[in-house]
Amino acid sequence: MTVNDEYYMQFALNLARAVSGQTSPNPPVGAIVVKHGDILGFGAHLKAGTAHAEVHALQMAGDQAEGATIYVTLEPCSHHGKTPPCADLIIEKGISRVVIAVKDPNEKVAGRGIDTLRTAGIDVELGVLQKEAEMVNRVFFHYTQTKTPYVTMKTAASLDGKTATYTGDSKWITGEAARHDVHHYRHTHDAILVGVNTVVADNPNLTARLPNGGKNPLRIILDTELRTPLNANVVADQKADTWIFTGPAITNQRTRPYEEAGVSVIPLDALDPDHVLNYLGSQRIMSLLVEGGAEVNGSFMECGTFNQLVQYMAPKLIGGKTAPTTIAGNGLKRMPDTQPIEIISVEMLGEDIKIIAEPRKGDADVYRNH
Amino acid sequence: MTVNDEYYMQFALNLARAVSGQTSPNPPVGAIVVKHGDILGFGAHLKAGTAHAEVHALQMAGDQAEGATIYVTLEPCSHHGKTPPCADLIIEKGISRVVIAVKDPNEKVAGRGIDTLRTAGIDVELGVLQKEAEMVNRVFFHYTQTKTPYVTMKTAASLDGKTATYTGDSKWITGEAARHDVHHYRHTHDAILVGVNTVVADNPNLTARLPNGGKNPLRIILDTELRTPLNANVVADQKADTWIFTGPAITNQRTRPYEEAGVSVIPLDALDPDHVLNYLGSQRIMSLLVEGGAEVNGSFMECGTFNQLVQYMAPKLIGGKTAPTTIAGNGLKRMPDTQPIEIISVEMLGEDIKIIAEPRKGDADVYRNH
Repeated sequence: MTVNDEYYMQFALNLARAVSGQTSPNPPVGAIVVKHGDILGFGAHLKAGTAHAEVHALQMAGDQAEGATIYVTLEPCSHHGKTPPCADLIIEKGISRVVIAVKDPNEKVAGRGIDTLRTAGIDVELGVLQKEAEMVNRVFFHYTQTKTPYVTMKTAASLDGKTATYTGDSKWITGEAARHDVHHYRHTHDAILVGVNTVVADNPNLTARLPNGGKNPLRIILDTELRTPLNANVVADQKADTWIFTGPAITNQRTRPYEEAGVSVIPLDALDPDHVLNYLGSQRIMSLLVEGGAEVNGSFMECGTFNQLVQYMAPKLIGGKTAPTTIAGNGLKRMPDTQPIEIISVEMLGEDIKIIAEPRKGDADVYRNH
Repeated sequence: MTVNDEYYMQFALNLARAVSGQTSPNPPVGAIVVKHGDILGFGAHLKAGTAHAEVHALQMAGDQAEGATIYVTLEPCSHHGKTPPCADLIIEKGISRVVIAVKDPNEKVAGRGIDTLRTAGIDVELGVLQKEAEMVNRVFFHYTQTKTPYVTMKTAASLDGKTATYTGDSKWITGEAARHDVHHYRHTHDAILVGVNTVVADNPNLTARLPNGGKNPLRIILDTELRTPLNANVVADQKADTWIFTGPAITNQRTRPYEEAGVSVIPLDALDPDHVLNYLGSQRIMSLLVEGGAEVNGSFMECGTFNQLVQYMAPKLIGGKTAPTTIAGNGLKRMPDTQPIEIISVEMLGEDIKIIAEPRKGDADVYRNH
């Protein structure tokens, strides 16, 4: 272990990781104040509208911040938002050196925070653990650059790729640890999306049921013909907001009972991923968890509109020529049509395997914004 | 690292692992001779009909073997087979201590080697790294106990479980490293089995094409109606023996051209896994690699007649409601019908994921010999 800039930035990144998913629409940020090798203060941005990471860290450091170095995982802001500019506070507290992992891509900041600090005579270093910081901030960066949500597609199957037996029995494919993990993904995403067939077949709650509570995502149902039952949990349970996206031909008369139950029925020109993601982006939904079923997954796969695949594989074999799989639709026609994907991690989660994969870097533009 | 009995046995086991798959119908065995902390000799059984591991190790040690300890991964033999009994040689060389990982389950040995050594006044210790040794010898142990081959089922699919696109395009699912790995499995198995549909669709060679050559397995085709084309590679290429298993109703007239091409056509009462494995066992085929297709995999899965699943998963998504998967057939009806399986290892192989799974221990009897 070498105690250097990377060491302290790693600590700050861990603080950011810890609050990842709870700061939307703001990015998760960590900060740490160090002088003569002592950690004098640290903090993270906990929730949109509350103090930034630098504020917490500088407050903990108090008067000792003078002459210290502050490590921040994202460029300090220089504009008046819901809180005063952090760059000003850093200057005011007498910090002599600022180490930043990555520049803020937000056009309101984008280098201006750094300019402000340098103009005040502060030594600024940029790019320490930049790749890690981009990873921690990937939802924020993606949304800022594309104005559409970062999409995580979640699937769960047996080793032979089945999501149920040929008779439709699917309880349960994966074990408790994997199901718990899914609830954490729900907690950290702004919205969750399923097709109406999943609502009709499984009547899911789509809530984040974690041992210590959880933040329920906005529930999105793709339902061209408005077939979602009025007594479905997503309509009746009042546990989270629900938006039903329909085709354009649904009458007010039909939408009224849903609206009365507190559910928004929103007609879109088309229910393909592009229309859905553009609309969600316009509503400041920064992250979306796609939980299927197979037809919905198929449309996101075929459009290439996902940023991350999280796949659980249970140590079971189900078999069956007609048993359902994770991704249906027509599917691709030829092997060369498949988009390059990269395995990011593979790990055991209880008795199940958890795989995280992403569209390969460099193909990302083709993949995400075609 | 502690230099103790386990340390030396691990070394001997590594020698056995290195020759695993090249000793059939004998087990892979390693041996090492140690005195005063020096390694004086080591060896492995290289091929059926040639010297046993102990012979090589004792030859290397020469006169220094007197008073030494010999570590052997399997109980030394006490009977006259193709070579003289190793227990006698150990006594003759003046070895004072014998450390054995596991008893030989073969009824011709089964403790008699140990008895011979102890009667001669040699200190014998049994059971050092026994579990590892059972793993190394799993093919031999399984065959000895059941008289049927150890079955490895190999599958390869995209992350969403597809083996081809809906149009049938399957070249290639996995990358070079995974395909190379498959050839090593072919090299280390006595026989390889596919259904006739695979022969018709892909015209495979089913040979072990490794950079430094390879031992081609016996090729088994399940072909009830004898539809294998006479110009198929498995009939015409002369690169390895081929047996075609048919239903009982095939006439001599139809089998003759196959026999003339050097291929054996063997009628069985039924082509289910039990009949196939019993026949192969009777022919001293100790290990079988099942390479599909999906219907053949389905029958082995539904009968529970496999000992190991080797699955490659490529970083691709193919999609498609009708695209083929690794295991077809009818499939199981209800989730509780699935047999408990255990993930043994998960690793990256090039860009692909390699998963090894086994029927869970304790359910093994139900699973293998129902």
